[in-house]
Amino acid sequence: MSIPPQNGWEGGRLLIDLAAIAANYMILHSLAGPQTEAGAAVKANAYGLGLAEIAPVLYEAGCRTFFVAHLAEGVALRRLIAPDSRIFVLHGPPPDTAPAFLAHNLLPVLNSLPQVQEWQALAQNEKSALPAALQVDSGMSRFGLTEDDVNALRLNNGLAGIETILVMSHLACADTPEHPLNRHQLDTFERLRKRLPPAPASLSASSGMFLGPDWRFDLVRPGATLYGINPTPGQPNPMQPVIRLQARVIQTRHVPAGAHVGYGATFVTQRPTNIALLGIGYGDGFPRRLGGKGVAVFPEQPDIKLPIIGRISMDSLAVDITDLAGLPPAPGVAFDLIGPHNPLDETAFLADTIGYELLTDLGSRYHRTHHDPRKG
Amino acid sequence: MSIPPQNGWEGGRLLIDLAAIAANYMILHSLAGPQTEAGAAVKANAYGLGLAEIAPVLYEAGCRTFFVAHLAEGVALRRLIAPDSRIFVLHGPPPDTAPAFLAHNLLPVLNSLPQVQEWQALAQNEKSALPAALQVDSGMSRFGLTEDDVNALRLNNGLAGIETILVMSHLACADTPEHPLNRHQLDTFERLRKRLPPAPASLSASSGMFLGPDWRFDLVRPGATLYGINPTPGQPNPMQPVIRLQARVIQTRHVPAGAHVGYGATFVTQRPTNIALLGIGYGDGFPRRLGGKGVAVFPEQPDIKLPIIGRISMDSLAVDITDLAGLPPAPGVAFDLIGPHNPLDETAFLADTIGYELLTDLGSRYHRTHHDPRKG
Repeated sequence: MSIPPQNGWEGGRLLIDLAAIAANYMILHSLAGPQTEAGAAVKANAYGLGLAEIAPVLYEAGCRTFFVAHLAEGVALRRLIAPDSRIFVLHGPPPDTAPAFLAHNLLPVLNSLPQVQEWQALAQNEKSALPAALQVDSGMSRFGLTEDDVNALRLNNGLAGIETILVMSHLACADTPEHPLNRHQLDTFERLRKRLPPAPASLSASSGMFLGPDWRFDLVRPGATLYGINPTPGQPNPMQPVIRLQARVIQTRHVPAGAHVGYGATFVTQRPTNIALLGIGYGDGFPRRLGGKGVAVFPEQPDIKLPIIGRISMDSLAVDITDLAGLPPAPGVAFDLIGPHNPLDETAFLADTIGYELLTDLGSRYHRTHHDPRKG
Repeated sequence: MSIPPQNGWEGGRLLIDLAAIAANYMILHSLAGPQTEAGAAVKANAYGLGLAEIAPVLYEAGCRTFFVAHLAEGVALRRLIAPDSRIFVLHGPPPDTAPAFLAHNLLPVLNSLPQVQEWQALAQNEKSALPAALQVDSGMSRFGLTEDDVNALRLNNGLAGIETILVMSHLACADTPEHPLNRHQLDTFERLRKRLPPAPASLSASSGMFLGPDWRFDLVRPGATLYGINPTPGQPNPMQPVIRLQARVIQTRHVPAGAHVGYGATFVTQRPTNIALLGIGYGDGFPRRLGGKGVAVFPEQPDIKLPIIGRISMDSLAVDITDLAGLPPAPGVAFDLIGPHNPLDETAFLADTIGYELLTDLGSRYHRTHHDPRKG
């Protein structure tokens, strides 16, 4: 399990399984069914895992509709995938940027009257209706037109110059199926979209898809599920795991009972203890909050959960390896910080956050390997 | 306060003041005094702020001794600064990498007997003693030789082939001056270093320097203070602030009392509320934990702390701007998420972490500007 020399110069490595991402896309594509297109959210650098490597894999798996947050992300994505794909920019056009959307073959999601007007001004210049998605806010108070906005647009021919190719909204509580806001948002969405030009509709991202067929409309926009996050917390995860985060042993040490471990001396050993110092810390985006809570796994003895003890440092963390059989693992040996026996969602739970944040926090200081088992 | 067009395509910007970093280095250099060299810790991409831009500024300010965590970081740093500077790699040589240290003009910190042997094997090959730092663990149970290791090396000519150019250790509780472990670590360091070859000594990083002259020895290794973090929590910050994080308005909206805001519908407005949606979220490394806790500041009305309401999304967050005078700020206007009126350490405190983690979490999705007011 030693990290091979070519990537032994960092403190750890992040393995990203591109085949699992493709498989997850296919799972979601099947769930969506023949009437519903499955798009993909690849914002935030494909949830931290590498847009450049992941977008082409999704395209190859059949995805033709992509969602990013910012214009800058759209520009980067357009260079990576063929022109027959659609790229929607969720945050819409910032002031004075509408021409850049045209130049880069990007589609804005129009969230507000100023954004509608921005797009209309360009259409007027271009003397041609221009395609865009319209977003309505159905009860999350985030992005999208209000009911008043929708009514205003309707009364005054307010959508002149805009070719509405998608009407969308976003759910606040989709990972909690019993939450009453879900039904309320569905009803609001149905009501508002009928006041807008007829167009394909989209309401659901990862978790919303699992609420049932009523929620899927013409297009779904999964993100988290593609990267292995469970869309149905509390139920078994239907997705394949995508990442494995491994940290190398820098040194091991034996300390007596009563030894202080780490910053603040917050941890005191209760028995003679073997410690492995591993080369990943919060400076790598591994949450400092996991000090005293997270677990590492030595892959050769995967059933033993090894506690992370004391505070996590910027570049390293300490693991109690006393319970391992045999000699302490040698320097260079890799431990799982996220892997088959300490998966992403569980690790995020221990850090009192969600898999989404843990994924996007993982930094760039690892040796990153994007491998595709299908291609050897 | 609109973000200029050239960087309006992202959701925010991170301003990094290189002159403030240079000024902080000079403050620490003065505090160190004529007998003590002031080095600089630039590990973790200079605490997340950009090694390539920052290392040359520190070199220009007079710094000649640098500390990184990993070999890979040392290789990157060596390309950035002149060969008359020393680069210590704190984690020492991973297995079979000692020749790379020589090739890249890097100095290892030897933390364990295997690392000592790794370096000795190279010296034997090279038929020449090779310079290195020796680290002893003085009570943190992290990196460094134990007392037994030190005794073993002493008895058996165990340091043959190693030219000891620095003996160092690291404090666990330096930001808590009254903690008894500080004195214990100082005493242990004094005792152990006398058993090693005579060499310059180093014990303190940022906070240790402020414990007093006894703690400074021949070399100090500040990191956090260079980047504006307060080394003396609870006291006024003697350092200049270095970063300012600004997020752009994507849209504003007015909602009645009783509206749900954000994921999970955890926040419900208690009054008619104006909301600004800003284009930075946890996917940018801005902690999700600040939802309901953090504050934004509109620079034109800096005395009003604007609460971040509801959960923070991956790419955006919502701010209650009801208390602002005048019309809601237009799309594109920048708000401070970290700035003069909501500084780094306070923001970290609200997120239940430390400035160190907040700094290193800040992602790369912003428009980053390294500016040097000294150079216009």
